[in-house]
Amino acid sequence: MRLTQLFLPTLREVPAEAEITSHKYMLRAGLMRKLAAGVYVYLPLGYRVLRKIENIVREEMDRSGAQEVLMSGIIPSELLEESGRWSAFGPEMFKLKDRHERDFCLGPTHEEVFTYVMKELTSYRDLPKILYQIQTKYRDEKRPRFGVIRSREFIMKDAYSFDMDWEGLDVSFGKMHDAYCRIFDRCGLKYRVVQADSGAMGGKESNEFMVMSEVGEDEIAHCENCDYAANVERAESRPDIREKQEEKPLELVATPDARTIQELTDFFETSPDNFAKTLIYTVKDQVIAVVIRGDRELNEVKLVNILECTKDDLRMAEDDVVKNVTNAEVGFAGPVGLKVDKLIVDEEVTYMSNFIVGANKTGYHYKNVNYGRDFKGDIVVDVRKVSDGDVCIRCGGRLSISKGIEVGHIFKLGTKYSEALGAKYLDENGQEHLMIMGSYGIGINRIMAAVIEQNSDENGIIWPMSIAPYHVIIVPVNTSDEVQASLAEDLYDVLSRNGVEVLLDDRDERAGVKFKDADLIGIPIRITVGKKARDRVVEIKDRRTGESLDLTVDQVLGYIKQKIEENMSKKE
Amino acid sequence: MRLTQLFLPTLREVPAEAEITSHKYMLRAGLMRKLAAGVYVYLPLGYRVLRKIENIVREEMDRSGAQEVLMSGIIPSELLEESGRWSAFGPEMFKLKDRHERDFCLGPTHEEVFTYVMKELTSYRDLPKILYQIQTKYRDEKRPRFGVIRSREFIMKDAYSFDMDWEGLDVSFGKMHDAYCRIFDRCGLKYRVVQADSGAMGGKESNEFMVMSEVGEDEIAHCENCDYAANVERAESRPDIREKQEEKPLELVATPDARTIQELTDFFETSPDNFAKTLIYTVKDQVIAVVIRGDRELNEVKLVNILECTKDDLRMAEDDVVKNVTNAEVGFAGPVGLKVDKLIVDEEVTYMSNFIVGANKTGYHYKNVNYGRDFKGDIVVDVRKVSDGDVCIRCGGRLSISKGIEVGHIFKLGTKYSEALGAKYLDENGQEHLMIMGSYGIGINRIMAAVIEQNSDENGIIWPMSIAPYHVIIVPVNTSDEVQASLAEDLYDVLSRNGVEVLLDDRDERAGVKFKDADLIGIPIRITVGKKARDRVVEIKDRRTGESLDLTVDQVLGYIKQKIEENMSKKE
Repeated sequence: MRLTQLFLPTLREVPAEAEITSHKYMLRAGLMRKLAAGVYVYLPLGYRVLRKIENIVREEMDRSGAQEVLMSGIIPSELLEESGRWSAFGPEMFKLKDRHERDFCLGPTHEEVFTYVMKELTSYRDLPKILYQIQTKYRDEKRPRFGVIRSREFIMKDAYSFDMDWEGLDVSFGKMHDAYCRIFDRCGLKYRVVQADSGAMGGKESNEFMVMSEVGEDEIAHCENCDYAANVERAESRPDIREKQEEKPLELVATPDARTIQELTDFFETSPDNFAKTLIYTVKDQVIAVVIRGDRELNEVKLVNILECTKDDLRMAEDDVVKNVTNAEVGFAGPVGLKVDKLIVDEEVTYMSNFIVGANKTGYHYKNVNYGRDFKGDIVVDVRKVSDGDVCIRCGGRLSISKGIEVGHIFKLGTKYSEALGAKYLDENGQEHLMIMGSYGIGINRIMAAVIEQNSDENGIIWPMSIAPYHVIIVPVNTSDEVQASLAEDLYDVLSRNGVEVLLDDRDERAGVKFKDADLIGIPIRITVGKKARDRVVEIKDRRTGESLDLTVDQVLGYIKQKIEENMSKKE
Repeated sequence: MRLTQLFLPTLREVPAEAEITSHKYMLRAGLMRKLAAGVYVYLPLGYRVLRKIENIVREEMDRSGAQEVLMSGIIPSELLEESGRWSAFGPEMFKLKDRHERDFCLGPTHEEVFTYVMKELTSYRDLPKILYQIQTKYRDEKRPRFGVIRSREFIMKDAYSFDMDWEGLDVSFGKMHDAYCRIFDRCGLKYRVVQADSGAMGGKESNEFMVMSEVGEDEIAHCENCDYAANVERAESRPDIREKQEEKPLELVATPDARTIQELTDFFETSPDNFAKTLIYTVKDQVIAVVIRGDRELNEVKLVNILECTKDDLRMAEDDVVKNVTNAEVGFAGPVGLKVDKLIVDEEVTYMSNFIVGANKTGYHYKNVNYGRDFKGDIVVDVRKVSDGDVCIRCGGRLSISKGIEVGHIFKLGTKYSEALGAKYLDENGQEHLMIMGSYGIGINRIMAAVIEQNSDENGIIWPMSIAPYHVIIVPVNTSDEVQASLAEDLYDVLSRNGVEVLLDDRDERAGVKFKDADLIGIPIRITVGKKARDRVVEIKDRRTGESLDLTVDQVLGYIKQKIEENMSKKE
């Protein structure tokens, strides 16, 4: 493709709307434009990258034995009512009515539709099946941001497996896990497979594929010693088990001016880990309290799973509720003598000795509190958020916390949807069973952004060969020099005819402008046709390493083809 | 792919919902299923066909120089308000609101979005451009029917051209015309390019690509002598020019019991072509009358264009309006002395002599009416629908009328959208001009149905090689015969490894069932592995011709590859 013909509106200036590298470069390199908040359009270069990612996904899904289908983008409400998600999805789901006032949504995900379609298969002979589609999905995000990292319209590869039993699901899940690894490897991403929360969707096991990046919206705990890695939403660490000290007598202490942790630690001349804090929540019509060590944060996802409720059910208690159950102003809640419907205690609290808690009396705290003697929880459980430096639950190594962008998610659903929609099969003995399901998603556009986050420098994008919009860009330094122009044309012709995807910058621009654009759009190999064209010599430059070498024209095709071949499968 | 693994739910029975061949076979052959009225899901075999069609479209669009992009599926209302289509589209457009109550629609077509995106290009150097996308579109059809022929969710290739001037548009239009011909040829369709109505969209020239088929919803007039062909909505024929006869005196005749054409022709002992009928319409707050010869039908599309109104603006007048303007009961309207806001006369009426019309008096008609002497129209124009047997406007040959399915439409838009949205460019002298646009659409799913309408028999589908879901199906007659099973496996392996798309019917079914399914799903070549497998001989059968021949195993690959090659580009 010639740059004089290509629809490639590059920008010198950084658009005000863009906060992160990928977003900036996707706009500046003319890959996409914004049409509305969280709604983007893809221009030719951007769409080529998307299609290359799609094709990698398709190839690896097919290789895994999955079969491609295409479900409808709009879904009638009836199907989502059967699973209960018509209301559960909330405002994140776009809803609409047809001319007969029938309710539809723009599919945010397609568990129900696939389950419905699979109901046509009723014999054990028909199983297992893995079906997938690559489709535009919609989620009305509260705060669309970071370009396509969190957008409202996006392309998703969603797959669903249907097995006879849980062992079958393990096999399907394993196939998807392996396919996902191959996909992200081929896209040139550095990623981690992390354990993810699965409670809310009623599933059994769940892995996220996280691209490590400072701009990620997820936090991941990973062990520096073993391969344990988990989303902090579900990450576990070994509790800090301290040697029990002799229990001192419980003591009520007036703390008139101390409410904050800082004021309290000053007052008691001790550190936050010698306090236990008590947090009051309401869940529907119940009041619950959670006790965790003073230096810890509560993990609300764990709490939701423990309570078997939804995120929306769980709320921090209003002041009047707190006053009611503690008989005190806010800030003096504690577990001793507290009357709530359920008292949940983080396991770490049971290893503390002689610690400090609120006294449920305005202006007072208890010191020398001990679990068992002074109060008991209804449930003792891990409900804390892991912190940097915690001890790995698996090997005892040190955990550290990093940020990541979720690009894939695989999930053992179990029977939630097959039960709700009645997807059953008959076994060899004519016995009926529910199909056991898994669901597997990849964000196609998000891969594109994640790749740019990991593969760019101050001059622009550095595409991995496998998803580069073009492999090579030919830049004649001086287009009005006939020798250069004609050699560039010859090379363009030869490379194109030999299956190399090549851009020719035939614009009448200064060499500097052309070099800048070539770097910005991130084409892996640049061929510069300059003064040495007279000697039939050109310069080959590697966008990633910056290394360059001179080749005679006859050497170019062979060199380029080898370079493409080498880099196509390489994890950069 | 093995049939034991493929998700291929074929049906013996014809589903009640299906009225036409393609719809029946698309359901019976397990290509798709209905999810809601006019909303379908595509199963693996059906989706393979769709993707092959998409790829042909993509290849030919790219070859024409068009560049692929992807616009958003949802469009903010602001853009359609600029062109006036937010309200003009009516109930056919799905509308929805986001969580902030902002209005969007599901794009029914994307003129506004492409025009908006092109506004970024402002120099004559950036033109011409042809951009296209392949995308799911939505139209809330009043009566979705015939499966995917008229559905509410469908895949469309839509392209838009942007030129500096009308001559440029002619070039772009020609490129699209040629690309469309190549696309439909490669898909194995028999089609006609016909002139289509362009008035309503404000364009200049418009061609439809019509697949001739009895189940088509469009009527096409085509000349048996020259290549004139036009949608009847806009087709013209030469008026029937009759020699003028001596004008007789106007005569009021009591016709008490005659109202219908039949009763009137009996009463006057003459044929309908000696009558002129007068039809009364309202357009907004105006009353208009149209006079056409008694044996003719009015063409409402022509009338709408003449009146420069919309279809919805034009209504048959209510009885009270008719009574009011004619001072008579309904059935006696006539042009003589009629008081309406506009009297439109079909040109053919001016060539009649001494004809009969209603007298605007209950129970009376006039005879011996003559145009010019007894009444005059405000407009004399072609407003009649062409009939089978009319005279070709171009060559004087005979027109005949056939039905067709519209699979493509190319359209010279002009400046309607560039003016509404302000898409301008500066010429070499710094002068500003509007871009001149064209739009070009192809219905991907509809091609699939149209191909089946033209390529099937009583046993099922007969896919053209170019879009067949698989090229070959191998059917071992007796799967439990080890020699047959093993030879079938060997062939499956050899063909697959050599790039042949091949199905292996490894199901433990009777041969008859397998043959029926193979015919139903329409795979072009069937390889039957039967008793001769012992001698390493198999039967090759052509689905289209029914011809079969025996080949030794060693001959199979070469024969199949040649057969595929031959048929890939052939118009069947």
